[in-house]
Amino acid sequence: MAIITLTTDFGLKDHFVGALKGSIYKELADAKIVDISHGISPFNIHECAYILKNAYQNFPEGTIHIVGVDAEPTPENQHIAVLVDGHYFITANTGVIGLITSEVNPEKVVHINIPNPEHGSFPVMDVFVKVACHLARGGTLEVVGKVFNELKQLKEYTPTVTDNGNKIVGSVVYIDNYGNVVTNIHKNFFDAYRKGRDFELNARTTKIKKIYHRYSDIINFNLDRNNRRGAGDLLALFNSSNYIELAIYKSDLNTVGGASTLLGLDYRDMVTINFL
Amino acid sequence: MAIITLTTDFGLKDHFVGALKGSIYKELADAKIVDISHGISPFNIHECAYILKNAYQNFPEGTIHIVGVDAEPTPENQHIAVLVDGHYFITANTGVIGLITSEVNPEKVVHINIPNPEHGSFPVMDVFVKVACHLARGGTLEVVGKVFNELKQLKEYTPTVTDNGNKIVGSVVYIDNYGNVVTNIHKNFFDAYRKGRDFELNARTTKIKKIYHRYSDIINFNLDRNNRRGAGDLLALFNSSNYIELAIYKSDLNTVGGASTLLGLDYRDMVTINFL
Amino acid sequence: MAIITLTTDFGLKDHFVGALKGSIYKELADAKIVDISHGISPFNIHECAYILKNAYQNFPEGTIHIVGVDAEPTPENQHIAVLVDGHYFITANTGVIGLITSEVNPEKVVHINIPNPEHGSFPVMDVFVKVACHLARGGTLEVVGKVFNELKQLKEYTPTVTDNGNKIVGSVVYIDNYGNVVTNIHKNFFDAYRKGRDFELNARTTKIKKIYHRYSDIINFNLDRNNRRGAGDLLALFNSSNYIELAIYKSDLNTVGGASTLLGLDYRDMVTINFL
Repeated sequence: MAIITLTTDFGLKDHFVGALKGSIYKELADAKIVDISHGISPFNIHECAYILKNAYQNFPEGTIHIVGVDAEPTPENQHIAVLVDGHYFITANTGVIGLITSEVNPEKVVHINIPNPEHGSFPVMDVFVKVACHLARGGTLEVVGKVFNELKQLKEYTPTVTDNGNKIVGSVVYIDNYGNVVTNIHKNFFDAYRKGRDFELNARTTKIKKIYHRYSDIINFNLDRNNRRGAGDLLALFNSSNYIELAIYKSDLNTVGGASTLLGLDYRDMVTINFL
Repeated sequence: MAIITLTTDFGLKDHFVGALKGSIYKELADAKIVDISHGISPFNIHECAYILKNAYQNFPEGTIHIVGVDAEPTPENQHIAVLVDGHYFITANTGVIGLITSEVNPEKVVHINIPNPEHGSFPVMDVFVKVACHLARGGTLEVVGKVFNELKQLKEYTPTVTDNGNKIVGSVVYIDNYGNVVTNIHKNFFDAYRKGRDFELNARTTKIKKIYHRYSDIINFNLDRNNRRGAGDLLALFNSSNYIELAIYKSDLNTVGGASTLLGLDYRDMVTINFL
Repeated sequence: MAIITLTTDFGLKDHFVGALKGSIYKELADAKIVDISHGISPFNIHECAYILKNAYQNFPEGTIHIVGVDAEPTPENQHIAVLVDGHYFITANTGVIGLITSEVNPEKVVHINIPNPEHGSFPVMDVFVKVACHLARGGTLEVVGKVFNELKQLKEYTPTVTDNGNKIVGSVVYIDNYGNVVTNIHKNFFDAYRKGRDFELNARTTKIKKIYHRYSDIINFNLDRNNRRGAGDLLALFNSSNYIELAIYKSDLNTVGGASTLLGLDYRDMVTINFL
């Protein structure tokens, strides 16, 4: 039985997530449901895409991902089901699919033809659950709706290269649980333009000349604890998704704050790299 | 195997929820456990009832709901297990059952006779888990305790009608993850008194003359994006539970705030409707 | 199939927990995964140990506990897998094991020899998941790594006895979801030194002369509600783990605050008991 994942902006206090799971089990007693996140900032498609992009590939092929962010159907955002990169996504046509799987073409997209109830509609439950359970039982996309080829595209925040290839202009795309700042500059992109040169990364007034591979790479373990870098120190690294991240080693937002507050960086803020 | 749901005010950081699940699996290796919410405001029976009322019916009949809010047994709040509307609830006799299922009479109520340990008691784990696993294995309520007929009743916040049927006086019963304000005025109640008349909804200084059925109903999709209502605009609608809700279209509490802060409305505040 | 539990400081918003679960299911389709907590304060080993200590024993023997707090391997914190008290723990050698199971000697400890990837490492996923799935399939620790005998020890915050056995000096080790203050003074320790004497518990300027066994023990149910102690009143009790806890009866941090704020007590603050 395929896994059904849930990614929503419902939060964990309200009844929405529980109601959703109940209705899945009512339809499919053996369903295997996994929460990806219910903490997406409300209606934030880019954040939803960032989290799903980094989570979905870890699931087995054939997994069914319900996207419960901005899911109300409108003439501009119809309900769709998509097979892409071996995974199913059930969502409103908000542009989220293009952001999640920007480098892969969808194998199939259908426009879902299950109607919402006139009153008291809760589209994720009334429509997406039905589609997910149908797919989990081994059903096909064609039964759910007509093939559709107008996936909405949202502007993706991709880095640009200027100054004859000497400068990368990227931006902040996520701030994580530790306050660490994730940019949209991928290691492959960085390496392609770096060509072995030295560089200077600039984030507001902060300048960084080295990018590590692990958080603890900043520590010289040959020195004793009082004479080496450690908790609270700033670093840049290629994170577990291979994007450049600005991090505080062992940050705790409850106490010392994170890189985001230290550097004064928020979503969409610019991070540049000058090759020397 | 029946599902066991958990609704508590334990929060998700402490060890309580994990300990609870461990003890269920220890007793019943194949248990199917679903979290409804662990974010109930501590000891808030009305909030717990609101969330369970809106969640439980989506689960299959025979589901067993553990209610871990104000669960310590006292002479005034004994432990009970209830079969109502095809679902089992295990709870202290706090009045929560009457609020969850106000329109249905319980089929059976028993006073649980499993003793709490003298020291180090954790009633939800020590008592409710045993009852839940017994029921999940197909056991009967009679084995768990004696039939009992004194379900505590709490004052329910129901709307009233005044002014010869020309005015509904309701109140705020919940503020959700989006800051949207849920009232206790159900569509059926509203329709019964409206009798086709125009009306004015009043919430503090705000007046609203239309109640929609979906959030996006406020948008005229024939107009271009700059000339139509949209994100940040206030509306009233019948929500997915068919209660009147005051909402901000695409609100995000992290940024623009929700209807609750915009309108200055909190739990128990009054919302009135005058029929014209 | 053994249960795999997760205890991390990842939070519930980011993709980390979802990615982790996906990768477990990818390796082991029938895995049974239980969240203990993802809300550990970042890198806080003592807090992680407190929560795991109070949760793990409720799970069946043979359960596999993944500890995703400060999990990056360093020359000083190597990855280990431990069998202790019938449970498996997979963790970096941070000292957390000694704090979780201070009174039990480990049956077996191995130094995990699965390498982390050079780039984009996410050790909990890349290493711990592999070990957990191996163990869940019935594999042995020996296959995972070499036997190892250098479990790091962290200073544990244990109470001391001074003044010829007339005074216990303890400290605050946890503040829970209700703002209740948990000390490190266990009932057994207290009883051993009390020897039936009266006592005075001191927490800053507050003095308490009685320790209850249940929260509601402060209420005299023979009196009517207006003339007895109740919600908002302070008490000390032996909590469900049998440690002395300072609590507000029916506290709600959203409204009246908890014992922690009322008493001005934070982690590591001193709580003393003078026997009279």
